[in-house]
Amino acid sequence: MGLFEEVLQGQPRAVGRALSAVERGGAEAELLLAELRGHAGAVRTLGITGAPGVGKSTLVQTLGLQLLERGERVAVLAVDPSSPFTGGALLGDRVRMPDLSARGAFVRSMATRGALGGVAAATADALDVLAAAGYGWVVVETVGVGQDEVDVAGVVDTVVVVTVAGLGDEVQAAKAGLLEIAHVFAVNKADRPGADGEVAALESMLAMAPEAEWSPPVLPLSAMTGEGIAELLEAVAAHQAHLDADGRRGALRRARAERRIARVLEDLVWRRVRAGETRLALAVDDVAAGTLSPHDAARRLLAAMILEDA
Amino acid sequence: MGLFEEVLQGQPRAVGRALSAVERGGAEAELLLAELRGHAGAVRTLGITGAPGVGKSTLVQTLGLQLLERGERVAVLAVDPSSPFTGGALLGDRVRMPDLSARGAFVRSMATRGALGGVAAATADALDVLAAAGYGWVVVETVGVGQDEVDVAGVVDTVVVVTVAGLGDEVQAAKAGLLEIAHVFAVNKADRPGADGEVAALESMLAMAPEAEWSPPVLPLSAMTGEGIAELLEAVAAHQAHLDADGRRGALRRARAERRIARVLEDLVWRRVRAGETRLALAVDDVAAGTLSPHDAARRLLAAMILEDA
Repeated sequence: MGLFEEVLQGQPRAVGRALSAVERGGAEAELLLAELRGHAGAVRTLGITGAPGVGKSTLVQTLGLQLLERGERVAVLAVDPSSPFTGGALLGDRVRMPDLSARGAFVRSMATRGALGGVAAATADALDVLAAAGYGWVVVETVGVGQDEVDVAGVVDTVVVVTVAGLGDEVQAAKAGLLEIAHVFAVNKADRPGADGEVAALESMLAMAPEAEWSPPVLPLSAMTGEGIAELLEAVAAHQAHLDADGRRGALRRARAERRIARVLEDLVWRRVRAGETRLALAVDDVAAGTLSPHDAARRLLAAMILEDA
Repeated sequence: MGLFEEVLQGQPRAVGRALSAVERGGAEAELLLAELRGHAGAVRTLGITGAPGVGKSTLVQTLGLQLLERGERVAVLAVDPSSPFTGGALLGDRVRMPDLSARGAFVRSMATRGALGGVAAATADALDVLAAAGYGWVVVETVGVGQDEVDVAGVVDTVVVVTVAGLGDEVQAAKAGLLEIAHVFAVNKADRPGADGEVAALESMLAMAPEAEWSPPVLPLSAMTGEGIAELLEAVAAHQAHLDADGRRGALRRARAERRIARVLEDLVWRRVRAGETRLALAVDDVAAGTLSPHDAARRLLAAMILEDA
């Protein structure tokens, strides 16, 4: 039996091997993804993101256990835009999540550097694998607060941004970048002093936001005690229902498809330009010397690539 | 007198206007950068990065004041890959750094979303403006711990990664992504318990790294009291001297030029593909429906673009 058939049957070891192939990228991954195409089940994807230290992992575990108790098949993907230097091992250890694994969830951390089209593209490919393997819910956890996290948020249906009270100014500033991608805000460690203030602060920030079809609720909760988790799942379900209405899920899929195409396209073009070694080297020298702008160099290289190919 | 002449004279208001133009991007920015080309002075660029809460801003201020005392002309650029939602206002307020400004440093925070080629390209353009304006040192502070920060690190000469003892596991994992881009490690708040352990932990991580021409030193310091700052500046100077030897600075400039060209090129290609609306829409529909892979879609769109252009 081929790997793709084992994946379709939902065999965890095969799913793990398939995700490794996606991590590495290249022809093997492309072939596998082509085989899996059209076999995706109905999967709900949930992103959990937020600044470091807000308790995302605990929340993922608590949420995962709740979903398992409701009879769902659950996969957890921890996305680590990690360095080749550490190989993502730190995160790998961190997210073993023994409770979830023991109760049948599929848990996996993914280091994605070097994947064709970047971390978001690799995550989207991984979600295709997990959808084909028949998981009903995939929870994607991201580490960090940069553009990668915003990109990864773009490949899931519902994004939960986690915050806590009492973070420093700098974390607050970093958090601001996550505001626009949130469908639900979770204020974790709600038993701590200041949690009400955090809820109020988020609500007043949201009040300044432009009118939109979906207004993100702000939910105090405790991932540790489980308080407020049921309400979080309700809010997630409400957002999923919102997506199912008025063709929104289709529009979301198309927006996502366009981004995936764009990333792969950029990568392809750059590989071609690199193949014209001498021409690239000359342009690079001129830009480095300050005699040519990066914009003009890019225009020339593109024109040359097109001429050559035609 | 044109804006570019005022920039060459180092007039702070003109420099500010030029940086706003770079932030906005487009034809005006390109024209200005073309005028400034070839006028860059000898500038040393220093990146300060690290997880939220480690005291980067305090360190930037302390470093900036030291450089001013040594008679240097200093500019500080705080790079904020911020959302249109908040307009970067949070960070803008945070980095006013009145001490530095009062003593003649140029301090500016930059929100760069939407710039052609992304945040790193906009930062590189901003460094061109500051170099033409005659600043001898530019300190670039980044917020966040994602790919943007790694990209921004690629546009400066020397990268200082700041850490502190006692961060949570998650911040540690996020930090791992910064290990490979560091030229110097600063363990801030060195008077705190655990600082020695943090230094030792970093040193043992570095011991596992492959042999390289430059070994990043790990320096305990206190940005608040100024202890260890002189040693940090020595380490930075040593790294700059390392770059000046054996043609390394030239190689660095070329690597940087190549990345700038690549980012602009990707952007140009995508703009062209978007211009072929119907074809793109059909490909997007097929990828969204799962009947076409993003890879195949990208290949077809690229081929079509080339055919059309030739």
